[in-house]
Amino acid sequence: MIRAGIIGSTGYAGQELVRILLGHKDVEIKWYGSRSYIDQAYASVFQNMFQLVPDICKGEDLEQLCEEVDVVFTATPQGLCSSLVSENVLSKVKIIDLSADFRIKDVDTYEKWYGIKHQSPQFIEEAVYGLCEVNRDKIKNARLIANPGCYPTCSFLSIYPLAKAGLIDMKSVIVDAKSGTSGAGRGAKVANLYCEVNESIKAYGVATHRHTPEIEEQLSYASGQEAVINFTPHLVPMNRGILVTAYANLVKDVTEEELRKIYEDAYKDEQFVRFLNAGVCPETRWVEGSNYVDVNVKLDERTHRVIMMGAMDNLVKGAAGQAVQNMNLLFGLPETEGLLMPPVFP
Amino acid sequence: MIRAGIIGSTGYAGQELVRILLGHKDVEIKWYGSRSYIDQAYASVFQNMFQLVPDICKGEDLEQLCEEVDVVFTATPQGLCSSLVSENVLSKVKIIDLSADFRIKDVDTYEKWYGIKHQSPQFIEEAVYGLCEVNRDKIKNARLIANPGCYPTCSFLSIYPLAKAGLIDMKSVIVDAKSGTSGAGRGAKVANLYCEVNESIKAYGVATHRHTPEIEEQLSYASGQEAVINFTPHLVPMNRGILVTAYANLVKDVTEEELRKIYEDAYKDEQFVRFLNAGVCPETRWVEGSNYVDVNVKLDERTHRVIMMGAMDNLVKGAAGQAVQNMNLLFGLPETEGLLMPPVFP
Amino acid sequence: MIRAGIIGSTGYAGQELVRILLGHKDVEIKWYGSRSYIDQAYASVFQNMFQLVPDICKGEDLEQLCEEVDVVFTATPQGLCSSLVSENVLSKVKIIDLSADFRIKDVDTYEKWYGIKHQSPQFIEEAVYGLCEVNRDKIKNARLIANPGCYPTCSFLSIYPLAKAGLIDMKSVIVDAKSGTSGAGRGAKVANLYCEVNESIKAYGVATHRHTPEIEEQLSYASGQEAVINFTPHLVPMNRGILVTAYANLVKDVTEEELRKIYEDAYKDEQFVRFLNAGVCPETRWVEGSNYVDVNVKLDERTHRVIMMGAMDNLVKGAAGQAVQNMNLLFGLPETEGLLMPPVFP
Amino acid sequence: MIRAGIIGSTGYAGQELVRILLGHKDVEIKWYGSRSYIDQAYASVFQNMFQLVPDICKGEDLEQLCEEVDVVFTATPQGLCSSLVSENVLSKVKIIDLSADFRIKDVDTYEKWYGIKHQSPQFIEEAVYGLCEVNRDKIKNARLIANPGCYPTCSFLSIYPLAKAGLIDMKSVIVDAKSGTSGAGRGAKVANLYCEVNESIKAYGVATHRHTPEIEEQLSYASGQEAVINFTPHLVPMNRGILVTAYANLVKDVTEEELRKIYEDAYKDEQFVRFLNAGVCPETRWVEGSNYVDVNVKLDERTHRVIMMGAMDNLVKGAAGQAVQNMNLLFGLPETEGLLMPPVFP
Repeated sequence: MIRAGIIGSTGYAGQELVRILLGHKDVEIKWYGSRSYIDQAYASVFQNMFQLVPDICKGEDLEQLCEEVDVVFTATPQGLCSSLVSENVLSKVKIIDLSADFRIKDVDTYEKWYGIKHQSPQFIEEAVYGLCEVNRDKIKNARLIANPGCYPTCSFLSIYPLAKAGLIDMKSVIVDAKSGTSGAGRGAKVANLYCEVNESIKAYGVATHRHTPEIEEQLSYASGQEAVINFTPHLVPMNRGILVTAYANLVKDVTEEELRKIYEDAYKDEQFVRFLNAGVCPETRWVEGSNYVDVNVKLDERTHRVIMMGAMDNLVKGAAGQAVQNMNLLFGLPETEGLLMPPVFP
Repeated sequence: MIRAGIIGSTGYAGQELVRILLGHKDVEIKWYGSRSYIDQAYASVFQNMFQLVPDICKGEDLEQLCEEVDVVFTATPQGLCSSLVSENVLSKVKIIDLSADFRIKDVDTYEKWYGIKHQSPQFIEEAVYGLCEVNRDKIKNARLIANPGCYPTCSFLSIYPLAKAGLIDMKSVIVDAKSGTSGAGRGAKVANLYCEVNESIKAYGVATHRHTPEIEEQLSYASGQEAVINFTPHLVPMNRGILVTAYANLVKDVTEEELRKIYEDAYKDEQFVRFLNAGVCPETRWVEGSNYVDVNVKLDERTHRVIMMGAMDNLVKGAAGQAVQNMNLLFGLPETEGLLMPPVFP
Repeated sequence: MIRAGIIGSTGYAGQELVRILLGHKDVEIKWYGSRSYIDQAYASVFQNMFQLVPDICKGEDLEQLCEEVDVVFTATPQGLCSSLVSENVLSKVKIIDLSADFRIKDVDTYEKWYGIKHQSPQFIEEAVYGLCEVNRDKIKNARLIANPGCYPTCSFLSIYPLAKAGLIDMKSVIVDAKSGTSGAGRGAKVANLYCEVNESIKAYGVATHRHTPEIEEQLSYASGQEAVINFTPHLVPMNRGILVTAYANLVKDVTEEELRKIYEDAYKDEQFVRFLNAGVCPETRWVEGSNYVDVNVKLDERTHRVIMMGAMDNLVKGAAGQAVQNMNLLFGLPETEGLLMPPVFP
Repeated sequence: MIRAGIIGSTGYAGQELVRILLGHKDVEIKWYGSRSYIDQAYASVFQNMFQLVPDICKGEDLEQLCEEVDVVFTATPQGLCSSLVSENVLSKVKIIDLSADFRIKDVDTYEKWYGIKHQSPQFIEEAVYGLCEVNRDKIKNARLIANPGCYPTCSFLSIYPLAKAGLIDMKSVIVDAKSGTSGAGRGAKVANLYCEVNESIKAYGVATHRHTPEIEEQLSYASGQEAVINFTPHLVPMNRGILVTAYANLVKDVTEEELRKIYEDAYKDEQFVRFLNAGVCPETRWVEGSNYVDVNVKLDERTHRVIMMGAMDNLVKGAAGQAVQNMNLLFGLPETEGLLMPPVFP
């Protein structure tokens, strides 16, 4: 039985981790960490867990925690994991960090986009970017996993096959992304009140969103070229789900059949990436509550561009589900263990 | 392995059955019945099942179906199951009928409220009302289960302990219920369009809703008195969930502690009924996607009334989940098998 | 031109007052009061007012304000208006208080239900309860108007005709009310975040909600009997709208036609109360953005009860619209001036 | 008093026309046309109009209608207006067509994208594209107005200043648009049911949507170059609102200040186009129920692209409001008459 601790278990991603791990036959949650609800019953914060989770919330003491568990998930804001991690900690437990602290290899880039000083640059090098579909082997032997961001996961997996195939101009990529409101977190802000979000859609962080360099870095690795992209996130009045609509210029003539063949080959062995039938657009409703990413591609001959689309649940494949997928790899379990729940509709 | 067939698998309740049974380790779905989508891929109707369900939709031929499976779920409109069932069918398979056809013991009452002639009155007597919490033993040996209605399940379980305890006037009960829109089905009607339902709430079927006699009958059994109630359903702009707020006059003086003791005793061994802590109101968000019913009770000393509240997912405990609970009992499996998924939030 | 000041103009009700008064040909808003946004542009708080309201938010100095305007609206939490009002103020301006401070004549009742000490009990007597449909004449000559609460307005107008006619048992009344989320205000609370409210419904304030004594008091006046009611509000995932479903025991035999005649007579001269056709249930979508209240009544012969229903926009007839209706009466304008905008659908 | 007739008054755009015209002091609606609801009370179809519209729905007989009114609005599907219009009709009334029939000057382009044969190509030449902000003078003298599409209005007004200024590559423009569900019309389709749209977002009509050539044609006029664009619409779970996020490559170096100056100059005299302050993104909630379009622009120096954004209410500026704006011009009224209602929030 893998003993797990969660720092940040009372955020939306942390709570989703709890939900998924409760259904994972090889894991026992030993530590429900929280900053705001210490000493309160977890189930009083999330009543869905009434009678399912009898535990009381504890704090964020990673040094103590690493004595009691085998794996720690940090589902916390940027900067916390990097301020807590140490050689001692890493020698005792696996760390799966759901924040951005170890996703970006270049510390200057991190500090510029996030506007904070990195607290543990010495661990950036060894941290493995936990996108299982591309880094499966490295993940197995890592001590520290940088769990990918929600937007980057969906953006990257939508674009990856064509980036790798060298078919698109990596400086022409435009990612127009749309997210449900759980992505904004559980903090009490006027902007996230029901009446402010409902019946509205808006772009935010235009040309400045922090997920931009993460997507660029991964696309650069995949394509072998420097990717410079436009990334525009939007807030959508729904709880869960991310939809990516990405555009790129083709660098050579290609048919839609050829495009489809490239996607099929790229994802034929992937259990969580579903390449949809021709003409079917991804919709977030079809992946809700699951670890699946639905992707598709469309050629526009008039403009010599491709439209690449992806849909996933931001809290599952975009956060907690992917974290468990990484944990499975770290502990030698089947990658899909505890993650095969079908999407919930409607 | 239990072989299951679903007639009406392309409605919302039918699709929820598919979702739940896909996660049930002892069941294999052999027949995806549908009236509207025969010969089409099930996953083209519900894209969430893409790559999970490779099957093609078949028709509603119960005589053929009963040769191929062990249990048939009929998730169809009123009147269909009773028109298909026969002694031959019942001799070969267990039938779990999610429609109202066999819920009401008095055929005149059924025909009056439903406005249709009952096609198989000869089977009403033996049919068992599949509310596991009260009819567990009878269910185990039944051939034909009348799976309870969504509103009746939530209404009854909210009121049951006080009805049974003889503490409330069974002619004073008022049930004000609120349901998500999946309860209205998947038929293409203007009234159920997004823009018609969104940003609105309304009562419907006031003093005439068909679930009224079903609730009355079960409350009469529980209390040993004739229950005559007001039942008012409302349509709420959300996908899933039923909330019941019920009122009744107390017939004797009682404290809130005594009331709570009665509920605790009634539900202490029930795995799917969660009696909440004092002061906590049930909310549908805390049960979504799960088979749980959350209930609570409040004494109003000023008016000498009790307010009894319940929340559940209409598609799970109110339909597909309860049907699987019944199936588990019918086949000697643990009652909770395949049904312990925690509620999905948010 | 009537010069108006709004204290609390940056709440939802305050902003709705701004919207309505911008379309009122006889009013000019001279003061946008706010506690949280002093010195900020009003249109930076509510971007819908960009280029329509060039003003900067000011504070809550009622003594200064009463020198500059003819009417002051206080759209603030309980306790503020009663702490600011004075004989000097009342001698100079009309006050329309959207809070509960002057709605309840018995100060003990107020202090018990609201849990605060009343700051100006000396003005309670003269304050007029601003429900135009029943107090039209008194309002015209008042200095201080207690603008009715949202739930009380809708509850009272749904029940009023039968209460006045003496047809219902005033101790049997049960009001089950449902409100959109703008009724919860614009404060930054976790409970009101999008993801917490969306896809859920709950009761709150069960048997303890502060609007209970307000409804009871007005129903007692109307019926000439002491009304003791159950009032249960619910939070609904929509921005605007209140729906009331009320139940009462009949004290004599009556036909539905007789019931309808009573409502027709009660409301035949009212411009903002629409008594719907037989069989049509009120729905909040049909009154959104307007000052209308839609009501209807249904006899349930089986239970000898009536079901009385009402729907209105909580921010208009339940707050800002009714306040303007009161203002029109106070200043001798046509009661409907600036209030005849048709409901916005969808 | 202008006498108006509406063909298609029982669709969402038609009903919005009714709402707006009821508040227009110079117009009287004489004819409520409908295909589905002939001889039924208009207010029984749209209960918001109860007691406000006493009229009965009539048919679509344009020849009869043109004898009785001064202006006809056709808020109908493609192909109807062009099949009804004639020289006789145009000699008697002004026609404002809310469908696409007369928006595209090249009949082959129309027939290719719409897949139907044009019924009145002889009137295409004289029809004026009713985008008041660019065709104000031509509109005043027209007999037949092609009211712009919802997506084209918002897309064009977001991009127009830079297209006209020659600053962007007209073959690089990508329009990623998001619309509320009222844009899908009031037809009873499974895809538009509440539970299918709620909690989801999807792209549709990718690379094939019919509004593409309309946007291209208008951008070509504005820029003097051939525009070839990508246009991708998305369905958003909200009733109203369109948000456009458009991207284009700059053809010369420019500062954000210069970009802002160009927008300011372009729209400084426009009453319904609000160029927002720097850093403020358009959001659909801020324009709901109003005729305003909010636009803004952002320079991305990293990618040498501009992001152009616009938000408006698809039923008002995108349909009925713009139609009334055109009517005002046609009849010599102030362009803003009946259209200055502030946006409704929340």
